[in-house]
Amino acid sequence: MIRIGIIGYGNLGKGVELAVKQQEDMELIAIFSRRGKEGVRPVNQAVTVEHIDAIPDYQETIDVMILCGGSATDLPEQTPKYTQLFNTVDSFDNHSQIAQHYQTLDKIARDHHSVCVLSVGWDPGLFSLNRVLLEAILPQGMTHTFWGKGVSQGHSDALRRIEGVKDAVQYTIPVADAIAQVRQGVGAELTTQDKHLRECYVVAQDGADKQAIEEAIVTMPNYFADYKTVVHFIDENTLKHEHQELPHGGFVIRSGETTPHTQQLAEFSLTLDSNPEFTASVLVACARAAKSLADLDQFGAKTILDIPIRYLSPKSYDALLKEDI
Amino acid sequence: MIRIGIIGYGNLGKGVELAVKQQEDMELIAIFSRRGKEGVRPVNQAVTVEHIDAIPDYQETIDVMILCGGSATDLPEQTPKYTQLFNTVDSFDNHSQIAQHYQTLDKIARDHHSVCVLSVGWDPGLFSLNRVLLEAILPQGMTHTFWGKGVSQGHSDALRRIEGVKDAVQYTIPVADAIAQVRQGVGAELTTQDKHLRECYVVAQDGADKQAIEEAIVTMPNYFADYKTVVHFIDENTLKHEHQELPHGGFVIRSGETTPHTQQLAEFSLTLDSNPEFTASVLVACARAAKSLADLDQFGAKTILDIPIRYLSPKSYDALLKEDI
Repeated sequence: MIRIGIIGYGNLGKGVELAVKQQEDMELIAIFSRRGKEGVRPVNQAVTVEHIDAIPDYQETIDVMILCGGSATDLPEQTPKYTQLFNTVDSFDNHSQIAQHYQTLDKIARDHHSVCVLSVGWDPGLFSLNRVLLEAILPQGMTHTFWGKGVSQGHSDALRRIEGVKDAVQYTIPVADAIAQVRQGVGAELTTQDKHLRECYVVAQDGADKQAIEEAIVTMPNYFADYKTVVHFIDENTLKHEHQELPHGGFVIRSGETTPHTQQLAEFSLTLDSNPEFTASVLVACARAAKSLADLDQFGAKTILDIPIRYLSPKSYDALLKEDI
Repeated sequence: MIRIGIIGYGNLGKGVELAVKQQEDMELIAIFSRRGKEGVRPVNQAVTVEHIDAIPDYQETIDVMILCGGSATDLPEQTPKYTQLFNTVDSFDNHSQIAQHYQTLDKIARDHHSVCVLSVGWDPGLFSLNRVLLEAILPQGMTHTFWGKGVSQGHSDALRRIEGVKDAVQYTIPVADAIAQVRQGVGAELTTQDKHLRECYVVAQDGADKQAIEEAIVTMPNYFADYKTVVHFIDENTLKHEHQELPHGGFVIRSGETTPHTQQLAEFSLTLDSNPEFTASVLVACARAAKSLADLDQFGAKTILDIPIRYLSPKSYDALLKEDI
């Protein structure tokens, strides 16, 4: 059995607990949180919960530590720290800083004879894999990534900071016409703004000026100003009942020509009822690879681009050759 | 520059010639054929053509040999033979014999310090990769592969062997209702026969009994008897003008649940104007990986499951981290 630990127990940590349970060759040893024993209620109440200060005590009993904190402040500190003690997996998704995160982790992992699988999930992660794979195969063409329909936590948070907003949820929605263009091999010039619209469900505080709220939303730089943005005001009850799930998904589409007018189209798509549960499932499969690569002394930092996919599977290589190839 | 050789010059070999031309870090050194110089007309007439007997003379000047023969008789003989002299890539697609082909090649490649990338293309190949990847991530679920719409060469050949048939083309077509079921997470029990129908365009010889031909088609064991099969009789001119292309494509769909009723759907799909040109493009990207792995002394046989995807790309790892992850 591969012995798993979880650091951080929000939506993602909970998803990892559930995903480990689905894997027959894994067992969850403990969940670690800043909140300690009293502050965490795991789905399976029999699971051990510890304060993060106890982490070093588990060096001999956990094979892979899955880090479930946020990319803004938790992971830049935690992944380097715990890669000194364990094989680790994280979902660091600040795209512009992944190269730096990799360099830091690669040195630590090599020095400490561990494996760190960084920046996995679906984007970065499965979408990255498909972007690289499909561009290598079809060098003359264009790649487009679409996100949604799904809840963007960052944009929902931005709405909630506006004066007069009591609560809000923001959906990122791919523009159907842009998808159709890309599938036809046109639309190379489409920007992220052209390809997505932003739909906001907002609960206003009693007596708030809704027109001012809407104006504040649609003119907010970076988040909404450059996008087609639709604002719906709803009551608190509707928000609670109809907008509590965290669906998401998206597409990577590569369109290329192997000879003039011979179009080749490849597409990878996800339709997820739960973004955190799916992301967690990717992390857990990558934990298996971290263990296998460490057993082979292939220490260092690894992105999804470095990992032979056989190591994500619980099957023997012979079974893969006979059943899946 | 990665120096490429091609063995066999049918539709696939021609596709490899075209695909190598699109890759800026590759050059085509020579095409080898049983027909020799006189029997082959490459797209680029300046390309060297040699009889296959000249292959051993190129051991120092070709880095990767791409084998473009058929899986029935050519590749079982040629891939082992030439892996003794070169790094090789083949598209061996007889699924039931891939494990055996791998074992044979792995020993030869290790003994001769070469790398053999076997059974690549899209199925086996990209579809295999997605089947393994998605099943590892979503262990509780079902995977379905659909092929088409596309021309099946084997089934077209079977039609042409029927008495009274002058020429014919067969299209494999995925059943829309079956695709819809699988996307909804139902239909675990669907068989290959349930998921596909076979559409035949047949040119009958003058005076042939069309009813007898149709009966021979729809009752043909293995090929048609178990499928919903539609037969259209057309004239020779229509076949020549409307059915000479080789489009193909298909889908791998994995549908799973991370918790009860939380459905997660992942799909990889291809829509190809030219099946041989796309397959060739996969072989060529894998030739780059063969060279990289050989340079790293990672000798042996490799399927797509063994290859870190970074090695298929011409980009530096740093560029991949910055631009694609």
